[in-house]
Amino acid sequence: MSDSFKTPTSVAWKLTLMELHVDIVTLAVPDLDAAHRFYVERLGWEAALTVPGEVTFLRAGSGRMVALFARADLASDIGSGEPPSFDLGHLCPDEAGVDDVTAAMLSAGGTLRKAPQRAEWGGYHSYVEAPDGTLWEIAHNPGWSIDADGAAHIGAP
Amino acid sequence: MSDSFKTPTSVAWKLTLMELHVDIVTLAVPDLDAAHRFYVERLGWEAALTVPGEVTFLRAGSGRMVALFARADLASDIGSGEPPSFDLGHLCPDEAGVDDVTAAMLSAGGTLRKAPQRAEWGGYHSYVEAPDGTLWEIAHNPGWSIDADGAAHIGAP
Repeated sequence: MSDSFKTPTSVAWKLTLMELHVDIVTLAVPDLDAAHRFYVERLGWEAALTVPGEVTFLRAGSGRMVALFARADLASDIGSGEPPSFDLGHLCPDEAGVDDVTAAMLSAGGTLRKAPQRAEWGGYHSYVEAPDGTLWEIAHNPGWSIDADGAAHIGAP
Repeated sequence: MSDSFKTPTSVAWKLTLMELHVDIVTLAVPDLDAAHRFYVERLGWEAALTVPGEVTFLRAGSGRMVALFARADLASDIGSGEPPSFDLGHLCPDEAGVDDVTAAMLSAGGTLRKAPQRAEWGGYHSYVEAPDGTLWEIAHNPGWSIDADGAAHIGAP
């Protein structure tokens, strides 16, 4: 979808239904190793998934994660502009969901930071900045599953 | 506990068990009314609880909320220093839990921003800044309940 991404007028009806969920809170940390040391080694928070030098996922309650991610890597992932200190991740069950939620947020007054597109990690995502400055990542990750209650989990159902 | 709050040595054993949960993501917004308009009126995200001029709670998945809160009010609530653009709220089933989690975070290298104490809203809370800069609010709210799965809900069980 990428550069040609526009807000379809057909999604207007969704605006009355849109419930965002926060499946992942990404902390865009100045130093990934230091953050990992604090939360995992010193605080003892068990990592659900660690990709050394890239990302650490920590279970933060049923169906939700905190991700530790270097701020410089978030800047690269967004592609332009200053990265914020965090973003909120809303996971969708498919790519069309990413398009729909992105379009709804833009219709409501959000600003597109990255149009829906394939991500390096194998999924499909966009970044939208809300008027309050909060950065939302709208993503479909085929390596995660979403259960009947809408909770996201790493791996197959 | 307040000014006399210190890290009890007896909590060291907890450091290997500590799992933080994120029950509330507070967005410290520059303009509360504008944020409410975007998320609730224009995006159509149903508010779980609105206290006009003070706070809006939005359900963000099972057992978790996004709170819209004015940045100036967060600054007042912390009491000193610059407020961040967000904080992560970890709810505890009782006041002792607030003391314990706060102590564990300090033992691990966090910085106390507000010692555990009674809050204006009727609960008991502290603020701890993690080394990565993330502000955590550790709170007990007697107006909320925490179910068997650890999920927090507004109101009685």
